Amino acid sequence: MDVFSDEYFMREALKEAHKALAIGEVPVGAVVVSNNRIIARAHNQTEKLTDATAHAEMLAATAASNYLGSKYLDECALYVTLEPCVMCAGALNWVQLQRLVFGASDPQRGYRLLNGNVLHPRTEVTEGISAQEAKDLIDSFFRRIRGKQR
Amino acid sequence: MDVFSDEYFMREALKEAHKALAIGEVPVGAVVVSNNRIIARAHNQTEKLTDATAHAEMLAATAASNYLGSKYLDECALYVTLEPCVMCAGALNWVQLQRLVFGASDPQRGYRLLNGNVLHPRTEVTEGISAQEAKDLIDSFFRRIRGKQR
Repeated sequence: MDVFSDEYFMREALKEAHKALAIGEVPVGAVVVSNNRIIARAHNQTEKLTDATAHAEMLAATAASNYLGSKYLDECALYVTLEPCVMCAGALNWVQLQRLVFGASDPQRGYRLLNGNVLHPRTEVTEGISAQEAKDLIDSFFRRIRGKQR
Repeated sequence: MDVFSDEYFMREALKEAHKALAIGEVPVGAVVVSNNRIIARAHNQTEKLTDATAHAEMLAATAASNYLGSKYLDECALYVTLEPCVMCAGALNWVQLQRLVFGASDPQRGYRLLNGNVLHPRTEVTEGISAQEAKDLIDSFFRRIRGKQR
């Protein structure tokens, strides 16, 4: 696998998703890349932080801004294993993200459910990178949850 | 002014907006109310925190969840001086907010720009409380900013 390829960075986001899975969180992971370097990593922590807004993308974007000392991520790519929700897409708009790369689509809560562009008009989007692996991870998590509820 | 009225709680949100103005932030403030008690207060801190996602509503919702020890604010009202943006409305969806009360509408960035319901279907919305005061605050801020840029 090429270093600096979308597949490479998505694999790093998937590692974050696995960390979420290991602690009982919905397995979604994200990394932020600037000049081919990962400057922030995060996974979903809504349970751990008791905060429904603690999605991987939110945590990663905040960490990246903190690292860069800039409110804007207009020279950054964010890789996330699942299509961002409306909240996260709105956040990526505010940071003026240069490029969004996501894995699996989210027909239930993905930002594309809404008409109108939620993302910043300059944000380039690539989808479907390692999509099956990201989807399998989410599906296995929800199967396990449903099993427990029975 | 009645205690426990919308006007009373919006006045508290306006106090937060004034705090933001005093430190050079876009003057938006919010409070979260549970059982007629304010359990969280916040104002916009995007500059101070170098975080474009640090809107008053996000900070107030996170603080309220932390206070209650619950991801859900389904028995809470959030008062905010300005119509929430898409990111914040998406966040208020995830926390399943019971009631949203806002002051001024935001034709540029408000969540109602998008077709489709960004808020949770159970969230009741009241708008226009102390709207003129909230709008005047924002307008004076942007007039001052533009003055500096000349």
